Amino acid sequence: MNRESFAAGERLVSPAYVRQGCEARRSHEHLIRLLLEKGKCPEDGWDESTLELFLHELAIMDSNNFLGNCGVGEREGRVASALVARRHYRFIHGIGRSGDISAVQPKAAGSSLLNKITNSLVLDILKLAGVPTVTNCFVVPMATGMSLTLCFLTLRHKRPKAKYIIWPRIDQKSCFKSMITAGFEPVVIENVLEGDELRTDLKAVESKVQELGPDSVLCVHSTTSCFAPRGPDRVEELAVICANYGIPHIVNNAYGVQSSKCMHLIQQGARVGRIDAFVQSLDKNFMVPVGGAIIAGFNDSFIQEISKMYPGRASASPSLDVLITLLSLGSNGYKKLLKERKEMFSYLSSQLEKLSECYNERLLYTPHNPISLAMTLKTLSEHRDRSVTQLGSMLFTRQVSGARVVPLGSVQAVSGHTFRGFMAHTNNYPCAYLNAAAAVGMKTQDVDLFVKRLDKCLKTVRKEQNKESNASAVENYNKTEDVDIEEMALKLDNVLLDTSQNSS
Amino acid sequence: MNRESFAAGERLVSPAYVRQGCEARRSHEHLIRLLLEKGKCPEDGWDESTLELFLHELAIMDSNNFLGNCGVGEREGRVASALVARRHYRFIHGIGRSGDISAVQPKAAGSSLLNKITNSLVLDILKLAGVPTVTNCFVVPMATGMSLTLCFLTLRHKRPKAKYIIWPRIDQKSCFKSMITAGFEPVVIENVLEGDELRTDLKAVESKVQELGPDSVLCVHSTTSCFAPRGPDRVEELAVICANYGIPHIVNNAYGVQSSKCMHLIQQGARVGRIDAFVQSLDKNFMVPVGGAIIAGFNDSFIQEISKMYPGRASASPSLDVLITLLSLGSNGYKKLLKERKEMFSYLSSQLEKLSECYNERLLYTPHNPISLAMTLKTLSEHRDRSVTQLGSMLFTRQVSGARVVPLGSVQAVSGHTFRGFMAHTNNYPCAYLNAAAAVGMKTQDVDLFVKRLDKCLKTVRKEQNKESNASAVENYNKTEDVDIEEMALKLDNVLLDTSQNSS
Amino acid sequence: MNRESFAAGERLVSPAYVRQGCEARRSHEHLIRLLLEKGKCPEDGWDESTLELFLHELAIMDSNNFLGNCGVGEREGRVASALVARRHYRFIHGIGRSGDISAVQPKAAGSSLLNKITNSLVLDILKLAGVPTVTNCFVVPMATGMSLTLCFLTLRHKRPKAKYIIWPRIDQKSCFKSMITAGFEPVVIENVLEGDELRTDLKAVESKVQELGPDSVLCVHSTTSCFAPRGPDRVEELAVICANYGIPHIVNNAYGVQSSKCMHLIQQGARVGRIDAFVQSLDKNFMVPVGGAIIAGFNDSFIQEISKMYPGRASASPSLDVLITLLSLGSNGYKKLLKERKEMFSYLSSQLEKLSECYNERLLYTPHNPISLAMTLKTLSEHRDRSVTQLGSMLFTRQVSGARVVPLGSVQAVSGHTFRGFMAHTNNYPCAYLNAAAAVGMKTQDVDLFVKRLDKCLKTVRKEQNKESNASAVENYNKTEDVDIEEMALKLDNVLLDTSQNSS
Amino acid sequence: MNRESFAAGERLVSPAYVRQGCEARRSHEHLIRLLLEKGKCPEDGWDESTLELFLHELAIMDSNNFLGNCGVGEREGRVASALVARRHYRFIHGIGRSGDISAVQPKAAGSSLLNKITNSLVLDILKLAGVPTVTNCFVVPMATGMSLTLCFLTLRHKRPKAKYIIWPRIDQKSCFKSMITAGFEPVVIENVLEGDELRTDLKAVESKVQELGPDSVLCVHSTTSCFAPRGPDRVEELAVICANYGIPHIVNNAYGVQSSKCMHLIQQGARVGRIDAFVQSLDKNFMVPVGGAIIAGFNDSFIQEISKMYPGRASASPSLDVLITLLSLGSNGYKKLLKERKEMFSYLSSQLEKLSECYNERLLYTPHNPISLAMTLKTLSEHRDRSVTQLGSMLFTRQVSGARVVPLGSVQAVSGHTFRGFMAHTNNYPCAYLNAAAAVGMKTQDVDLFVKRLDKCLKTVRKEQNKESNASAVENYNKTEDVDIEEMALKLDNVLLDTSQNSS
Repeated sequence: MNRESFAAGERLVSPAYVRQGCEARRSHEHLIRLLLEKGKCPEDGWDESTLELFLHELAIMDSNNFLGNCGVGEREGRVASALVARRHYRFIHGIGRSGDISAVQPKAAGSSLLNKITNSLVLDILKLAGVPTVTNCFVVPMATGMSLTLCFLTLRHKRPKAKYIIWPRIDQKSCFKSMITAGFEPVVIENVLEGDELRTDLKAVESKVQELGPDSVLCVHSTTSCFAPRGPDRVEELAVICANYGIPHIVNNAYGVQSSKCMHLIQQGARVGRIDAFVQSLDKNFMVPVGGAIIAGFNDSFIQEISKMYPGRASASPSLDVLITLLSLGSNGYKKLLKERKEMFSYLSSQLEKLSECYNERLLYTPHNPISLAMTLKTLSEHRDRSVTQLGSMLFTRQVSGARVVPLGSVQAVSGHTFRGFMAHTNNYPCAYLNAAAAVGMKTQDVDLFVKRLDKCLKTVRKEQNKESNASAVENYNKTEDVDIEEMALKLDNVLLDTSQNSS
Repeated sequence: MNRESFAAGERLVSPAYVRQGCEARRSHEHLIRLLLEKGKCPEDGWDESTLELFLHELAIMDSNNFLGNCGVGEREGRVASALVARRHYRFIHGIGRSGDISAVQPKAAGSSLLNKITNSLVLDILKLAGVPTVTNCFVVPMATGMSLTLCFLTLRHKRPKAKYIIWPRIDQKSCFKSMITAGFEPVVIENVLEGDELRTDLKAVESKVQELGPDSVLCVHSTTSCFAPRGPDRVEELAVICANYGIPHIVNNAYGVQSSKCMHLIQQGARVGRIDAFVQSLDKNFMVPVGGAIIAGFNDSFIQEISKMYPGRASASPSLDVLITLLSLGSNGYKKLLKERKEMFSYLSSQLEKLSECYNERLLYTPHNPISLAMTLKTLSEHRDRSVTQLGSMLFTRQVSGARVVPLGSVQAVSGHTFRGFMAHTNNYPCAYLNAAAAVGMKTQDVDLFVKRLDKCLKTVRKEQNKESNASAVENYNKTEDVDIEEMALKLDNVLLDTSQNSS
Repeated sequence: MNRESFAAGERLVSPAYVRQGCEARRSHEHLIRLLLEKGKCPEDGWDESTLELFLHELAIMDSNNFLGNCGVGEREGRVASALVARRHYRFIHGIGRSGDISAVQPKAAGSSLLNKITNSLVLDILKLAGVPTVTNCFVVPMATGMSLTLCFLTLRHKRPKAKYIIWPRIDQKSCFKSMITAGFEPVVIENVLEGDELRTDLKAVESKVQELGPDSVLCVHSTTSCFAPRGPDRVEELAVICANYGIPHIVNNAYGVQSSKCMHLIQQGARVGRIDAFVQSLDKNFMVPVGGAIIAGFNDSFIQEISKMYPGRASASPSLDVLITLLSLGSNGYKKLLKERKEMFSYLSSQLEKLSECYNERLLYTPHNPISLAMTLKTLSEHRDRSVTQLGSMLFTRQVSGARVVPLGSVQAVSGHTFRGFMAHTNNYPCAYLNAAAAVGMKTQDVDLFVKRLDKCLKTVRKEQNKESNASAVENYNKTEDVDIEEMALKLDNVLLDTSQNSS
Repeated sequence: MNRESFAAGERLVSPAYVRQGCEARRSHEHLIRLLLEKGKCPEDGWDESTLELFLHELAIMDSNNFLGNCGVGEREGRVASALVARRHYRFIHGIGRSGDISAVQPKAAGSSLLNKITNSLVLDILKLAGVPTVTNCFVVPMATGMSLTLCFLTLRHKRPKAKYIIWPRIDQKSCFKSMITAGFEPVVIENVLEGDELRTDLKAVESKVQELGPDSVLCVHSTTSCFAPRGPDRVEELAVICANYGIPHIVNNAYGVQSSKCMHLIQQGARVGRIDAFVQSLDKNFMVPVGGAIIAGFNDSFIQEISKMYPGRASASPSLDVLITLLSLGSNGYKKLLKERKEMFSYLSSQLEKLSECYNERLLYTPHNPISLAMTLKTLSEHRDRSVTQLGSMLFTRQVSGARVVPLGSVQAVSGHTFRGFMAHTNNYPCAYLNAAAAVGMKTQDVDLFVKRLDKCLKTVRKEQNKESNASAVENYNKTEDVDIEEMALKLDNVLLDTSQNSS
């Protein structure tokens, strides 16, 4: 409403009240102005009404929402379904242009602003979360793996001779595939066992660089956040090696924004050595739906190069989600989430420790891993490995999601490469174990329910072990190629279930 | 967004694009300004985005949406559920004040504006629909019946000696109850049969006035829209009688806004005689949810008196619904709906006529009723009256809603008064019949489906008649007191259904 | 999705996963079943997804949502605007039938269920909140005042000779108007001062009953929740008087559900004497938008009579709001709100006490009032009464809503009756004062902001007093008839503001 | 609601009504069952209520919506903002797994079903739109360009020696970049002029294949939909060449689904020759927001290989949009849109023809292009080229979006490659021209407004030409590298605007 509208309003109801309403409007506008001027995440989260006002104001700046627009192009932001238009707050034109995913669209000033502001806010949060010297970043509507691929594809143009990517092993398929998809050959560096923990073999990395020759190496591809007992890579030392040999360094920081330790590794790496880009998931760090990532770095022009590699426009949906989320939370809200996560990690750790002792197991000592924990399943796997997978299956069907059992000796082929001891990040980890993680948004109730259900399941499995009855049903599982543990476990549980039902 | 925000936006993306977006915003603002300044329904319906912008702008003028508000009263517009807040667009304070449902609330400038504008728009539409000299109206969050009660209660204070309300019979319970609830004694004037049609017995009205004495008559309570074969009351002549004897005249125009004929009756009545207020349903005329009515009239101060009779605040929900609806449709959209309704009436009429001839029945000739039609069911009821109710039941279970069968001789007690021939508006209508109406929003498809299903049902009933098999199941129905025909019919159909299933 | 759909789903993705999803669905269904079977408010609040599933399931049972429906009536639940349909979750038919607002609609099984369940839940909550022996209640889409009117109109039919309503004075317009609108003459019983507190004059009530004769008294109309220094009426003793003289007793429990003290009064009153109905606001007690009330009582058939007095259908909107709210909160959530309110009352009380002492004022001692507090403004009003109103105005423009200043000697005419000392519930309260209330949903932050702003305003007013400069601007205010204190205060502040701006 | 719930409902309201509601529910369920069983787009679009019921049912099958879930993983579908959860209908887990974007997620049976069904529906629509023999497809949440890149990256693994992609020139940046990003060298084949139209130079393609050797060619990359005066590529003949030389063939069918001609080309190509995959935009063909594409083909296993190349999960948002859209429209609705588009093309064509004649221009004769039209701007460009860009700018600022002026001789570098005559698909097109397209969703009103505004702009430009006044402001534009015509035009218009304002 403009001045004339308010004046007309004053004639309809009392001027004094309209004036107060108009005054109240200014406080919303003030917040919006601050955001646009500073480009920073507000400290206190916004009210839903400010947020919707802002999105509405942006949306009407896009040509598809112009009241007098006539479209004679092939892409005019027309929407067939009102439901679809509404759920996107009428932002239809996506982000970016054919040339550059960060570019401004003439047809869509509102979407363009949304894109710029989101990237600016996210940059602010990365700084606040522990990487104060990051200089540029952008949200890309692709998951972490594909975003890593985009980084590698960008590097290809700068290093035409390179064929290899040096990669300290981490047993997560999409990390590996991100290199394969980009057309490079991953050079797997096995981890070394230090106590219970798996750490980067720095010597092996350096000697591999020397062996292959720096020019034939596209980059080192390291990882921060990961499942225990692997720790985050020694990013700092890797960064130094990269600097020394002039090799780019891409860090997979998948769900590391939520941990000050992971962020600190990146900050230090960039300070003392070389980090070209670090990539993180939107959903895992910011509690939004799956589908976006942030590509960030310390060199403005390299990050821009990556953003220019993305051919064509892209979905604004992940940007919109993270914008809404950060404005709702405010930086204080996000910091609070991070603090609570840390507390949950301690709580989960202590509860799992207690439980493990009851069953003659123990919590693995993995002091560098700030998010994931592992508890041994020795007594189960000594008996027979199937008990381990059975436990996983039971947890899954009891609505424990995200827990992960790692039996001994599973073998997996990923895109032609065979990994022994898959899921354990090493060929022969000494024992079977179970993973649980304290990720952002976890609640005390999650921990309590988990521990209670795990307790029950362990009891049941032990009982089963004594019966020795279902041997035949499961004997073939460990041979399976391309095994998925959740899937395997589930099938197993169903088999067991069927068996037990038939026998009753 | 204010000027500073746009300036900041220009620094983030190209000034030229932001300027164009800002320009586009102005066209939305222009529409809003026009509305506030003129208080008229826009000709062309608004875009959803303009509408939501407008509602959002209004809502942030209410104190419960002030960012800096602190509330220490007993009614602060707090909302426990975000779902509830959202569905009301954050208008929580309702409309009106303790003194007056049309009054402005200091705490809620936005809701107050909403209320004023809605009433203004609705007044505009009433004029356009055929009552150009109406001077004032307001939306009240009560259905037609209770709104009539409010009118009668207001008149009580002006006519302390009055005990009676003169009421040309119309067989609709809430009309009758509206008088009972207000504490008056309805004086029922039976209708006269002119051809097939039932019309107001003007002489009976006038002699009743003389008999009771004008001062003991609170008002005449007439009706426009009604089920055929009753026609709308002779409102013009009644208005003259009222003027002559100095008796107030309240018109129940329940669903008459949709018919230019009904509206014309009111316009003429007010021109040549006396009409104090006319009341119409929001849902039936404007395709919004049940629960609101419009009280309108030609004397500003009387309408204000009524609005001051409502003790306390009231729900803004019906006002909001009709505001959204009228702004979405525009006056052109509403006129189009009226035009289509008229066409549907002709279509329904011709289709029913054709069908009735196939079954040796006929469409009753009711030239004054512009909405409702009636087709005889002579051949059914000759046989046995249960066939008539069975037909009603069959239609209902076949998802024909709103059709209404009227058997001969049903008797109904409403609040102590016994109506013979209830539903037919007269003690002894010559034949049983079926009603169907062409109301606003009806589609060709409704007519076609209805005629098709009616055809099938008639066929089935005829077949049944020949069988004479289910006599015992139904014999008691016609005796039932306080019978509801839909309910009755449904029970019957279920009985028949059960019987047929058992026999198969 | 039915069994066949799940089977088809199993063919598309893994049966095991679909089965688990199907299992998960059952937990939602289980909650819905429990609700329908028990009709009680669930202890734990429902998830938004269960809630929406439930509303969706109900809505598709209404004929306007039947896929194959054809409508040939005058009220078919058609909706012109998709926005409107959506905000009502597609419940369009409202609640009730012409005969009875609690009746079931054949066309709308879903809305009918919604209505029944809401009433059942609300009854459960009334019991839990302190009136365990309540037997029946219903939600009515009218505010408290109009709901009281409906109760009085119902009583009229049972007591045709009665003309008077005995009413211990409470200075709230709509209470008074509720009786006037119903056509009765309120007999005002002045309160007696006990210490600082105003209490019911029981003797005056009884002698008035004797004077007028029980048969000419429609009912006693008492009040629980009210602004200090008035306390709740002595409901218990009034109930005994009513029982003794055979007079009905209607209790205005406007915002009393939130206080166990108010509820206890009602419970006791019904136990030892007579209470025919008690009426409470939906918005003030359940944090929903303005516009609904609950009429409750201990005699099933009388409550049904009231529900049958409402002529015609009614809006389902208030019922829907309270249903959503109660299901979201659960009874535990509601109890928690009540507990927090109690704590806020103590906190507000102690903070106001401290502040008042700083200004040589004091908190009035009103031990029976569990919600509202009053702090004297002696030092202000000694000087000149305008300072009191100025304070009110200043608070209002500083976004303190709900605070209320009560100057000495304001006179107000309401519907022809003149009240001396209006707002103070008595002709001559000893001093001016300020009210603040701790109502359900209040936060610590509200209290803190209020006390801070009040402190500032008091400081400013004191300074102003010494200047004596704006005398002329305000001299006429106290004479105004039908004065509204918020409005008055606001005008005043604007005058002062203009003056100060002109002088600068 | 399950059987027990309905039974409980029957006890609350009449069994007959509940039973009818329950019956009505079955018709929704029936539609859902059919969809899941057949996997085809329903003929008639679904009602919003069926659609939302379906989405709701799917969503509660995802573990993040399990009422009893406890999450101890790093990705649990937690959402911080209720607004975000709601806008995604609580689908949070995205689609696909680390291994494969089409894979089923154990944690998210609902999202997995959504993904499968969407792909199945889209396949059905591709068949219906003119490629009946397509065997597999999937929706990918990336725009067309990046989707093409993914196809090329997949081919790399099958053709390790290939370095080149043969590409009949089309002047659209993201097409070109899709090859660069994938790391290949585009071999640009210039088009040949046939009359006004630019067509594929088949001989040049074949001789290039021979020159480079088939093994060094990754694929031929052809295009269907494009701006006139270019026609769609001779896909059929190219497919034959590909088959003959054993070279893969990827077709960019960006907005070709909406044209039966483009689809027919693909169908024929696959029949007589070789097409490995064809890629189309979601937004341009299905009126959904930007951000998704469909990768489709005739060889099941190759399409699966592509889907397995996408590393990691992906956003479900584009799939959800197209699912909602197709279910709302039904296949009949979509066919209707296609039919209307065809009519709009004729209408636009005839209107432009008329207009062009008035200005001594003509519509270029481009019989093979079914979507885009071109009108010469000879008389403008003869004068000076700036007039052409000025026209573009004027149209843009007058809210004509999508029109595109093509001046003579613009030169553009894209990723290192220099294109002469950029935007015209050829080095030296004989004249400047203006493009307009009739894309799906266009309305008569768009055409009329466009022609009217174009008429006005042409008039103005002619007048300007005679003045010759603003020469200096624009002289540098044609030299600019990496010029964007919309941007350029806009700047120019602003310059002109400023000048004219200063002079007034």
